[in-house]
Amino acid sequence: MPIKLVTIKEDILKDNNEMSKLLRRRFKASRTFVMNLMSSPGAGKTTTILETLKRLGPDIKPAVIEGDITSIVDAEKMDKAGIPVVQINTGGACHIDSSMIEQAIADYDTSPFDLIVVENVGNLVCPAEFEVGEDMRAMILSVPEGHDKPKKYPLMFMETEACILNKIDLLPYTDFDLAEFKKTVMELNPKTTIFPVSMKTGEGVDEWVSWLKNRIRGKRYG
Amino acid sequence: MPIKLVTIKEDILKDNNEMSKLLRRRFKASRTFVMNLMSSPGAGKTTTILETLKRLGPDIKPAVIEGDITSIVDAEKMDKAGIPVVQINTGGACHIDSSMIEQAIADYDTSPFDLIVVENVGNLVCPAEFEVGEDMRAMILSVPEGHDKPKKYPLMFMETEACILNKIDLLPYTDFDLAEFKKTVMELNPKTTIFPVSMKTGEGVDEWVSWLKNRIRGKRYG
Repeated sequence: MPIKLVTIKEDILKDNNEMSKLLRRRFKASRTFVMNLMSSPGAGKTTTILETLKRLGPDIKPAVIEGDITSIVDAEKMDKAGIPVVQINTGGACHIDSSMIEQAIADYDTSPFDLIVVENVGNLVCPAEFEVGEDMRAMILSVPEGHDKPKKYPLMFMETEACILNKIDLLPYTDFDLAEFKKTVMELNPKTTIFPVSMKTGEGVDEWVSWLKNRIRGKRYG
Repeated sequence: MPIKLVTIKEDILKDNNEMSKLLRRRFKASRTFVMNLMSSPGAGKTTTILETLKRLGPDIKPAVIEGDITSIVDAEKMDKAGIPVVQINTGGACHIDSSMIEQAIADYDTSPFDLIVVENVGNLVCPAEFEVGEDMRAMILSVPEGHDKPKKYPLMFMETEACILNKIDLLPYTDFDLAEFKKTVMELNPKTTIFPVSMKTGEGVDEWVSWLKNRIRGKRYG
């Protein structure tokens, strides 16, 4: 039987570009580098942030904006690690947008911070469509999610500059095809950089942190 | 520093209940059991459907509606297995709604089918809010996603009758706490049934299929 294909167009892209532009002006004035970190639930966003900030060292003063539908679980982890954190609860919304960031930082002077990490809501789809005033967008895919995900969720891979492949310690226990994954991602987005890492064992993490540090310094002192 | 909490209310729940009611009347008339299957990308929806339909046996005549943002990768897998399939491409939308199902089945008589499986878009957030005329909602979480996910994405766990925990073959290689996971899920939704399975090794799959078969027969012959 031939496969029937139904294509449904829906305009879900809201114009949050104006607010994002204002945020960019503010972050430019305070020379604060903003990273928007996105992935599905469980790919390792929180662990990646904690490990990354630890390895960036005392020269980089960070803050984190946590985006979650509900709960302050992740914010508590940041707070425990001594990292200044603002928790956004979206009340159901599946992504962070610029107006949420505006509300989150309204009361703060951002100039002491070299880096603000926005940990987006766990979702490989919607967050890719909403700017949040960031300098750089990074995404995480984890090995157990499968090497075919770039084909099925292309926008996230196309809209990010760094593609962190986490949990490579699980490669021996899955049928994840690393070569195929890299090939597909580079076809979608030749400008992205892929970082195969294990935030558990530490493998590959220094390469990622070094790349990020150069980007942060470029804005702070460039 | 105390954690600052910003709560943002947004009404994202669209009224798609009327269309869902009409679909339910249609599926009642044709005695077709409809299952809405949801999970994050990579948790194993497609594999679960293929394995489930195989084990349900020739008594249960199935069809599948595939929901994807783009691509017909999953529909091709169903077609290869000889399963009648309709592919919905949402064109960006992060969930399936009732009007998409209506369009997908408009040209078909559903009475020959005992079971229609709706494979939703890979997303642990938004699909939980949209009915699609289903008799039963099932979700999959996979072990590598972590046992804390019910706390962070509670709606999906609250809105489903079956919670399939897939990839239990990876339990030895992760810090997933099965007891903690079960406890949290049952607190959120005491009426759900948890099925720990490995669609790779087959462990636990028969319990799930047997439970589902009873539900299908209840509608078909009840």
